[in-house]
Amino acid sequence: MQLPTIENIREAAESIRRYAKNTPVLTCRSLDRLSGARLFFKCENFQKVGAFKFRGACNAVFSLPPEEARHGVCTHSSGNHAAALSLAAKFRGIPAFVVMPDAAPRVKVAAVKSYGGVITFCEPTLTSREQTLQRIQQQTRATVIHPFNDPRVIAGQGTAALEFLETVPDLEIIMAPIGGGGLMSGTCLAARALHPALRCIGAEPAAADDAYRSLREGRIVFPKNPDTIADGLRTALCPLTFQILRSHLETILTVQEDTIIQAMRLLWERMKIIVEASAAVPLAAVLEHPNIFHRKRVGIIISGGNVDLDRLPWS
Amino acid sequence: MQLPTIENIREAAESIRRYAKNTPVLTCRSLDRLSGARLFFKCENFQKVGAFKFRGACNAVFSLPPEEARHGVCTHSSGNHAAALSLAAKFRGIPAFVVMPDAAPRVKVAAVKSYGGVITFCEPTLTSREQTLQRIQQQTRATVIHPFNDPRVIAGQGTAALEFLETVPDLEIIMAPIGGGGLMSGTCLAARALHPALRCIGAEPAAADDAYRSLREGRIVFPKNPDTIADGLRTALCPLTFQILRSHLETILTVQEDTIIQAMRLLWERMKIIVEASAAVPLAAVLEHPNIFHRKRVGIIISGGNVDLDRLPWS
Repeated sequence: MQLPTIENIREAAESIRRYAKNTPVLTCRSLDRLSGARLFFKCENFQKVGAFKFRGACNAVFSLPPEEARHGVCTHSSGNHAAALSLAAKFRGIPAFVVMPDAAPRVKVAAVKSYGGVITFCEPTLTSREQTLQRIQQQTRATVIHPFNDPRVIAGQGTAALEFLETVPDLEIIMAPIGGGGLMSGTCLAARALHPALRCIGAEPAAADDAYRSLREGRIVFPKNPDTIADGLRTALCPLTFQILRSHLETILTVQEDTIIQAMRLLWERMKIIVEASAAVPLAAVLEHPNIFHRKRVGIIISGGNVDLDRLPWS
Repeated sequence: MQLPTIENIREAAESIRRYAKNTPVLTCRSLDRLSGARLFFKCENFQKVGAFKFRGACNAVFSLPPEEARHGVCTHSSGNHAAALSLAAKFRGIPAFVVMPDAAPRVKVAAVKSYGGVITFCEPTLTSREQTLQRIQQQTRATVIHPFNDPRVIAGQGTAALEFLETVPDLEIIMAPIGGGGLMSGTCLAARALHPALRCIGAEPAAADDAYRSLREGRIVFPKNPDTIADGLRTALCPLTFQILRSHLETILTVQEDTIIQAMRLLWERMKIIVEASAAVPLAAVLEHPNIFHRKRVGIIISGGNVDLDRLPWS
C-alpha cells in the first residue's frame, strides 16, 4: 500500500474543508504549572461526531470515484469510526453499512443510526463480524473503509496536525494517543514534512501497550485482553501504521490507569472540556514523565469526547 | 453612579487583554437542528477562573490608581467573583481580601486560596458578611469591589459581547443569564452601541425570577428563597444593573428547572463542554420558546463552567 504524502494530507484538508471543523487550540495556565510544560490542546473532541475519526472517514468517502461511491461504504466497528463513516456518507449522499455486535452499547447504536448508518447486527466475535461484513459487501457492492489501514484515512487524520501547526507553528513536541495508530501516523507524516525537527511522541496505556512492544520487537504485536479504561486504544497496529510509526516516531510512553483517570479529570476540571479516557492518555504521559517535557512547547491532539455521562470513572 | 459607555468597554478590553482570554465561539449542528435556531456559543467557561467574572474583576483591579491599588481589594463572595478578584489582584501584585461564610464549600475555598486570595471566615448571614467586610476594609484600607454594582465591573463584562460581535458580526439576538445582571448589562451596552438592531434577551430560572419581576414591576424585587440549581442566579439586581436592563433589554424569559438540567446535559453531550447550570439557562430558554428563535442567528454567552464533578444533577 502506498504511504500517504504531505500532498495527500493537503488534498485531504481541501476535500474535507466543507464538512469537518477546524477545531480550536486551547491552553490552560494551571495545567502548564502542574506539568512544568507549555501545553497546547487541539480539540478534536469538538470535531463532528465528537472525534478526529471524522477527518479520515470523510476523506476516504470523498476520495471514491463516483461509480464506486454510489454503492456506498461499509465497515465493522462499534466505535467512533462507524459514526464518522455514517456521517461522511450522508454528506456525500451515499449509504453507509455498519456491522455491529448485537451486544454493542445502546448509545453507540443510537449514534450510528442518528447519522444515517444502516446497521446489521452480528455475533460478538471477530469471525462473525468479518463474515457479516463480507456478506453485506457482496450484497451491496459497497466499499470497505478500514478505520486505519488505509492511506486515505491516514491522510485525513493528518489534517488535524496540519491545522495544529498552522495555529501553533513553534511546537517542539507533538503527541497523540495510539490505538490502531491512524491518528499518530497522520500526525507524524504532517509533522515530518512541515517541521522536520518536531519530535513525535505517542502515548499508550501500559495495560494495552501492544504498539510500544511492536516498535521494540520490530513486528506487530497483538494486545492480549487489553484491560484499560481507554477503550479506544485496545486495537493493534496494522501494516501501514506500523511502517509509518516505525520510521517517524521518537518513542511511545506507556501510562498507568490511575494516571489516565487523573489526567481525564484534570482536563474536565481545569479546561472545562469533556474528553474520553483515550484522549487523556498523552496528558497522562506528560504527568508521568515530567523530565521529558520540562519547559517544552508540547502539542497534544485531544482525540475525542464521546463519554457516557452516566458512567464516569470517578463516580 | 455613571453608566459605563462603549468607550469604557473598549478601554476595558485594552486593559484586560494581557490577562483575560479571548475565548472561542463554538457552534453545534445537532443543537441547531434540535432548537431550530442557528446558535453561537461564546465560551466564557474557558475564561480564566472558569467564568466571565474574571473580565469585570480584572478591569476593576487595573482601573484603580496606584495609591489606592496598593492597599489591595476586598469583597464578600463565595463564588466566581471571589476567585476572579483574587487572580486579578495577583496579576497586579496587590492583595485580595475575601470574606467567606465558614460553611462555604471546600472547593470554593480552595479555588480562592489557589489564586492567592486572603480569606477571612464569618458567620453565614448577610449581616456578618457585611460587618466582617467593613472591619477588613478598615484594617487594610483595601477597596471594596462589588461583583456587579460597579461601572468598571460592568464595562469589563461587556468585553465578552465586544469580542463576540467581532467574531460573529451578524447575530440577530444575543443572550446571557441574569443573576445580579452584570453580564447582561455589559452585553446590552456593547450590543446597543455596535448593533442597535441586535435584540438583547435575558434568561432566568422561573424559581429565581426576581429580575423578570423587577422589570415588570418597575422596581428591584428581591428573590424569596430562590430554589434553583442555577446557583449563580439567585442574586437580586442592583440599582445600576436594574437601570441598564430596564432601558436596553427586550425581555427576560424564565425557564423551568427540568429544562435547565436538560440544556446543561445537552451542552455536555453534544458540544463536549463543561458548563455550570447557570450557563445553561439561555439555551433552556431557546428550547422552551422555539418560536421566538426559529431560524434566527442567536449568540449565547456561556457564563461559566465551575461544577463539582462529584455531584452532577443527573447522577
